[in-house]
Amino acid sequence: MSSNSFGTLFRVTTFGESHGPGLGAVMDGVPAGLSLSEEHIQKDLDLRRPGRSSLHSQRAEPDKVKILSGVYDGLTTGAPIALLIENQDARSDDYKSLQDIFRPGHADYCWQEKFGLRDWRGGGRSSGRETVARVAAGALARLVLEAANIKVTGIVSEIGGIKADTGSSDWSQAREHPLRCPDEQAAAEMKAAIETAQKNGDSVGGVIEVRASGVPAGLGEPVFDKLDARLGAAILSIGAVKGVEIGDGFALARTKGSSSNDLMDPPGNFRTNHAGGILGGISNG
Amino acid sequence: MSSNSFGTLFRVTTFGESHGPGLGAVMDGVPAGLSLSEEHIQKDLDLRRPGRSSLHSQRAEPDKVKILSGVYDGLTTGAPIALLIENQDARSDDYKSLQDIFRPGHADYCWQEKFGLRDWRGGGRSSGRETVARVAAGALARLVLEAANIKVTGIVSEIGGIKADTGSSDWSQAREHPLRCPDEQAAAEMKAAIETAQKNGDSVGGVIEVRASGVPAGLGEPVFDKLDARLGAAILSIGAVKGVEIGDGFALARTKGSSSNDLMDPPGNFRTNHAGGILGGISNG
Amino acid sequence: MSSNSFGTLFRVTTFGESHGPGLGAVMDGVPAGLSLSEEHIQKDLDLRRPGRSSLHSQRAEPDKVKILSGVYDGLTTGAPIALLIENQDARSDDYKSLQDIFRPGHADYCWQEKFGLRDWRGGGRSSGRETVARVAAGALARLVLEAANIKVTGIVSEIGGIKADTGSSDWSQAREHPLRCPDEQAAAEMKAAIETAQKNGDSVGGVIEVRASGVPAGLGEPVFDKLDARLGAAILSIGAVKGVEIGDGFALARTKGSSSNDLMDPPGNFRTNHAGGILGGISNG
Amino acid sequence: MSSNSFGTLFRVTTFGESHGPGLGAVMDGVPAGLSLSEEHIQKDLDLRRPGRSSLHSQRAEPDKVKILSGVYDGLTTGAPIALLIENQDARSDDYKSLQDIFRPGHADYCWQEKFGLRDWRGGGRSSGRETVARVAAGALARLVLEAANIKVTGIVSEIGGIKADTGSSDWSQAREHPLRCPDEQAAAEMKAAIETAQKNGDSVGGVIEVRASGVPAGLGEPVFDKLDARLGAAILSIGAVKGVEIGDGFALARTKGSSSNDLMDPPGNFRTNHAGGILGGISNG
Repeated sequence: MSSNSFGTLFRVTTFGESHGPGLGAVMDGVPAGLSLSEEHIQKDLDLRRPGRSSLHSQRAEPDKVKILSGVYDGLTTGAPIALLIENQDARSDDYKSLQDIFRPGHADYCWQEKFGLRDWRGGGRSSGRETVARVAAGALARLVLEAANIKVTGIVSEIGGIKADTGSSDWSQAREHPLRCPDEQAAAEMKAAIETAQKNGDSVGGVIEVRASGVPAGLGEPVFDKLDARLGAAILSIGAVKGVEIGDGFALARTKGSSSNDLMDPPGNFRTNHAGGILGGISNG
Repeated sequence: MSSNSFGTLFRVTTFGESHGPGLGAVMDGVPAGLSLSEEHIQKDLDLRRPGRSSLHSQRAEPDKVKILSGVYDGLTTGAPIALLIENQDARSDDYKSLQDIFRPGHADYCWQEKFGLRDWRGGGRSSGRETVARVAAGALARLVLEAANIKVTGIVSEIGGIKADTGSSDWSQAREHPLRCPDEQAAAEMKAAIETAQKNGDSVGGVIEVRASGVPAGLGEPVFDKLDARLGAAILSIGAVKGVEIGDGFALARTKGSSSNDLMDPPGNFRTNHAGGILGGISNG
Repeated sequence: MSSNSFGTLFRVTTFGESHGPGLGAVMDGVPAGLSLSEEHIQKDLDLRRPGRSSLHSQRAEPDKVKILSGVYDGLTTGAPIALLIENQDARSDDYKSLQDIFRPGHADYCWQEKFGLRDWRGGGRSSGRETVARVAAGALARLVLEAANIKVTGIVSEIGGIKADTGSSDWSQAREHPLRCPDEQAAAEMKAAIETAQKNGDSVGGVIEVRASGVPAGLGEPVFDKLDARLGAAILSIGAVKGVEIGDGFALARTKGSSSNDLMDPPGNFRTNHAGGILGGISNG
Repeated sequence: MSSNSFGTLFRVTTFGESHGPGLGAVMDGVPAGLSLSEEHIQKDLDLRRPGRSSLHSQRAEPDKVKILSGVYDGLTTGAPIALLIENQDARSDDYKSLQDIFRPGHADYCWQEKFGLRDWRGGGRSSGRETVARVAAGALARLVLEAANIKVTGIVSEIGGIKADTGSSDWSQAREHPLRCPDEQAAAEMKAAIETAQKNGDSVGGVIEVRASGVPAGLGEPVFDKLDARLGAAILSIGAVKGVEIGDGFALARTKGSSSNDLMDPPGNFRTNHAGGILGGISNG
């Protein structure tokens, strides 16, 4: 059943496997007249690229994006925009040992049960490398959001049980840090935790925090396409994500209504933001 | 924009407001030949009905369901099944004071901003009463799942910061308890916490836990329609839900890969279930 | 598989059988703030109602529509609008003879093959009575179109091989004529043809012609949601429709490009309309 | 708004412009385990290729297809299959004169009105060359249909007003004929008509006829996804198509019910096929 698309008006379809000819995305519903170049997308892909520090997995890929359609003379035309990132460092021989085993914590077993066969080379379609197409598509989505003055920033708030102080730190520099953590002291401890785990042939979990600013009131649709429901689905569709919280999230379950509701004074001017800016599935601005 | 439907092959569309003529649901894609009566759905609605104990909100509604289509001679026909629950205890006068104010923690303000007007009677479409249509639709969904030997059970695991011992307690009786909590001692403390909050004109948050058994391996579709992504979206679309965890959820972020991966021995026989039975978005059975 | 909905932003879901409790529709995506009453919809239902002249099938139904949701204080609220038309003249006994036979030219046999059982009472879901929900939904769609100054008019252009002169006749009065044909002389011949067929226990086919005015340039989406593709699908989804033509339709297949292309002078001012106002799937205004 | 996808379970998304880097398609929902090679798709592309005889438009393109994903070891894996056909003979200079004019009968004007700008090179996205992606996708769809023993054949039945005798002629050889017409005498006349029009700088219209065999009873979904509605939408989404008929089509409008209904004797054994094998939107086998 088709399931490689996300979105209704702006719809992203991704394709590609870890060790096939390439990965890519088709973005449909992009407004005409936006300025778009391969460089704009490439910048985000470069930030994603593994192998740039000792803290990342070691595959070295240039990950060069090519725009196949939908852009003419530097402007989007309203036609679907297809992006292709060809695989180059696809040393599938490294994975030959996986042909006959199912890695724990991976989709290998489930994929085999569902489809009766699988592309075992590096996880195939279920490889973390699938996110390269998301990053490329996201660079384009950001272009659309920026045209509406909406800015989305994400940072790493926790790794290996070490929590960053995300409230008081300055997020603007986090993008430059290899761990994307705005709290330098916590980042140093996280680095150590990762290195220790690496030495032991182990790995550590983490939490990311995302903020959107400039979001106008009124986004999100009752009942089933609530803004939190759509965001949650998008995030849970990323491999290895096992939880999502909006605003104060599970902490709200331990709070009284009197202290968890965001009071307005006057209407529209919220004094707190326990609800993550979403009430009844609609953004409150 | 249309957003009152959920699902692709089995699609639920709900409608109705807290104080309008009624609420209902249209279920499309229900297989033909299932035995279905109004009584089957009514049982679940009776369990949902508020006003049955001092612990619930006090609206007294019989909430009688009527099947409008899709069933003939006691069997589903493959045609869409429409359900209607007429409103009876719709004392909208009680809410007249809401006409000019926006309740904190409710969708009142967002709805006004989005649509330019709102049905202020008891929250209108964004009332918690919207879930009556979900419960009716769920009773039907359960029928389809049962035909496939899949059983879904949910209980209350936490209220007002009081956590139930959900692992060792027997869930089968929880349905009969007014708080749906299988741990009797915790349930008694929860009851006290609710009553205290009620006395102070306040409310408390909570957490529910849901288990599905009999799920075959292979459910869920990579990439965007992963089983956890779809479940997460469904749950986050319920008003007031602010977080979702799959398996061990956020606890996994504080765990090493070596102890969070579910080992198989032999393949298909998982020794643990930290991942909530879903790997790469596909159920593992 | 779900298939009782049509549309993306404005989505109609219909339900109900010829001899069940009732038929209805849920309209999702209707803008908030439109003035809507049951009377507005009832007017169209009254025009559809059979049994008003000797030329129609003889079932007598008041077909009273009830709005169940989505309207408050005379205005649409942005919530889904559910409509219900209860069946009253459902003499299913008249159809008992159909229980064991498959009527030729009806869906009886196909439905049985597809679903393994069927509601044989008057065709059940595949009855022509299904269109009562479309007419009600259409009355609401017209309201949305009128707010955008788009006017859609349909007339009968051919019955039993008798063609009306639709080009020169005045369409504005056709709505009042029992046969909806604007050419009075042709209408008289059509009436005779129908009466002759009725006497012989037979029926006759026909053609309808629909014009939309006020359509702005730019409606319709390349590639698969071309305006003609979506209109064609909608019309072919009506039972018994077996052909659709846009503009000059099949006549264009017998014409040279030089005389079938609609020249503009100046751009935007089309001198002819062989293409039915749609080029490349997009309206040309 | 996204509109470059078609289908629900098996969904095709196409992209690309006449003179951009390339055209392609992503096929989602293809079952795992089908044998698929680039050669299989290439064969259909070769049949489509223009410039092979004096009767076609003169662009010479090798149109080599490349499979980018979804196939491993010669078998489909259940992952989306992306196809790319790079443009080579993209002499956009030939079209420079189009930059400032709107060709009659083309989407140029509508696209400009809708999007505010356009890729004028050879029609851009609205070029007839868009069908190269459909042909490639169709080759894959045929593979799925063949696995279910369904065979679809299309021929040219009319060009420039010259009708072929499609009923008695043998369709199996039509694929080899440059005009795909099974009636050799009519084909010769069609060829002459095309050549005459070409000499006069003109073009001629035509009609194609498509038959599907091996279709089991039960395909197609009431109400809005009737088999004829979906087929009609697919065909009308092809540029320049202005009409669709199912079975006897418009001829049925001039026929009495007594001679247009397909009688069964016994049930399931239809003596005629005026309805095109579809009753109530469901195939009758």
